Amino acid sequence: MSKVTLRIIAEKTGLSKYAVSRALSGKGGVSEATRARIVEVAETLGYSRPSRSQGSTAKTIGAVFDFEDYANGEMNIQIQNGLQSEAARLGYSIRAHWTADDGDLKQFIEGCAALFSVNVQNKPALAQIMKSGKPLVRSGWAEPLEQVDLVGGTDREAGAAIGTYLYNLGHREIIFVHGDIDLRGRRERLLGLQDIVASKPDMTCHDITWDRNSTFSQGLDRVLAEGHRPTAFFCGHDGLAITAYSDILSRGWRIPYDVSVIGFGDFSPALQVSPALTTVKIEAQEFGRAAVRRLDASLRNPTQKLTPMRLLIPNKLILRDSTAPPRDDFLAKSLRN
Amino acid sequence: MSKVTLRIIAEKTGLSKYAVSRALSGKGGVSEATRARIVEVAETLGYSRPSRSQGSTAKTIGAVFDFEDYANGEMNIQIQNGLQSEAARLGYSIRAHWTADDGDLKQFIEGCAALFSVNVQNKPALAQIMKSGKPLVRSGWAEPLEQVDLVGGTDREAGAAIGTYLYNLGHREIIFVHGDIDLRGRRERLLGLQDIVASKPDMTCHDITWDRNSTFSQGLDRVLAEGHRPTAFFCGHDGLAITAYSDILSRGWRIPYDVSVIGFGDFSPALQVSPALTTVKIEAQEFGRAAVRRLDASLRNPTQKLTPMRLLIPNKLILRDSTAPPRDDFLAKSLRN
Repeated sequence: MSKVTLRIIAEKTGLSKYAVSRALSGKGGVSEATRARIVEVAETLGYSRPSRSQGSTAKTIGAVFDFEDYANGEMNIQIQNGLQSEAARLGYSIRAHWTADDGDLKQFIEGCAALFSVNVQNKPALAQIMKSGKPLVRSGWAEPLEQVDLVGGTDREAGAAIGTYLYNLGHREIIFVHGDIDLRGRRERLLGLQDIVASKPDMTCHDITWDRNSTFSQGLDRVLAEGHRPTAFFCGHDGLAITAYSDILSRGWRIPYDVSVIGFGDFSPALQVSPALTTVKIEAQEFGRAAVRRLDASLRNPTQKLTPMRLLIPNKLILRDSTAPPRDDFLAKSLRN
Repeated sequence: MSKVTLRIIAEKTGLSKYAVSRALSGKGGVSEATRARIVEVAETLGYSRPSRSQGSTAKTIGAVFDFEDYANGEMNIQIQNGLQSEAARLGYSIRAHWTADDGDLKQFIEGCAALFSVNVQNKPALAQIMKSGKPLVRSGWAEPLEQVDLVGGTDREAGAAIGTYLYNLGHREIIFVHGDIDLRGRRERLLGLQDIVASKPDMTCHDITWDRNSTFSQGLDRVLAEGHRPTAFFCGHDGLAITAYSDILSRGWRIPYDVSVIGFGDFSPALQVSPALTTVKIEAQEFGRAAVRRLDASLRNPTQKLTPMRLLIPNKLILRDSTAPPRDDFLAKSLRN
């Protein structure tokens, strides 16, 4: 197959080489309709830009974020901080893009030398990112054995560490505040807790889930009605801990004297609530830094494809004021009254 | 605190500075007893070698292996291959050490700029490695949230991938050949399989465990006596698959026509058995390469401690001749006769 040149595209479209060149380099001088037609023909023919013009974009790493990922908002900002600082150190510039419509994303990808998909769940967007063929790191989750570079935390280890911490404080009956059961990270945290519970004959845990039509409060009432007397709540996200605080405090229970509460994420509210929340830090800045270093390694060895890897940064347990040893039978006694 | 010099050690021991220097640099000219005394005094005083002599060892990465880790023998050789090739590329030399007595290990660690602990389970040896303060990567397993660099595979993902593969072939009742239940990797592989089973209402799995006092054959008899009619065996290690082959074939069942068998590891026996074994490759060479790259990054930035990381290399499913769609009710019929 002979190489597709600007001249061939110009012949196919009936336009000048100049117009084709302007259109494909994203510069002005052609209407959007003309540009669209030229890009379509160029793609149909399998045109790839010569390396000279690739050179001009070789230093841009594109970070793609999901358009409405509010729950991870603070984490995404931390990731972006890490991206920026490591990119500056290694001489890259970062361009950010939020998934909206696929057309935009395609153009964005074109202009980047490498891509970082930040927890993108939007399937068409992810498919487009995956097929770009450019060096790529993703955060979030992958399919089992999916051959892709992934950065993330150690959710299951963190759940286990919390389990051991609470056990050593003396807690034997734990509630995992789960909320939405469809979120993978929360399931992993619960699984880690269950790993520890399975290894301790005198320890139990139960999870409270809810959706649009139910509340934490109802879930807790149900668990109590079943006869459980938890002394500690491990919440799958700091946001859930805020919900738990409100309900627990309004029941007249004191934190941590009557019950302990732990969150996950170490986001701003963890220091805004009182008492300050014991939680688990997600090393999200490091996700960004690790992604840039990994993409840098790929870009510096364009001929050699690196073996895919999961780059997981161990979380850290942040001990504050919402956890303490359990009081003997507080809940058992208080609920009997 | 003033700096501990060779002169101070010479005064404390009543020996010449020359003898102290020879002893601490590991050179000849002093008896082993004298060397031991000098090293002890030097350590008591908190002596650290000046950077000039550190320079002479700055290019050695020490790989520590467990003395009697037969089950992982082939994997360890693959790891060592990866270590060697990446070390050669980056200009390091590799020294290997097998844990035996702690004294030897201490001297070995002294002579290395950085360490790779290859699945070392020996507790005193591991403790000594951990406290060396030198850049360190470990393979194997860590405590939850232990702040250490770890390389390894993706055992749980692999178990899930096997589960999906068998389900898509049509298998609905799976035996996990577990053997020794204390091995962490095998537990993780089973957990991955169970993840898939939990998501498929028409799929079940059971595991067969045994120890010195029992056999695979007894385990299989028990499972059959309980009424289970498995059509596929997922073995937690290629070695277990070899055991399963012998027993299954001696029962007159054919692989893969009557039952399917899958291993784990992709070690030599996987191609020695007939039919060739469908299994899961551990990217062990890449463990070695990743460890060297990570240690190199630490050694090039001695002032900045890197954030600890789990570097996990996705396994690969290796499809060979021991797996096929299940035959309708083969086992159910054959056992009825």
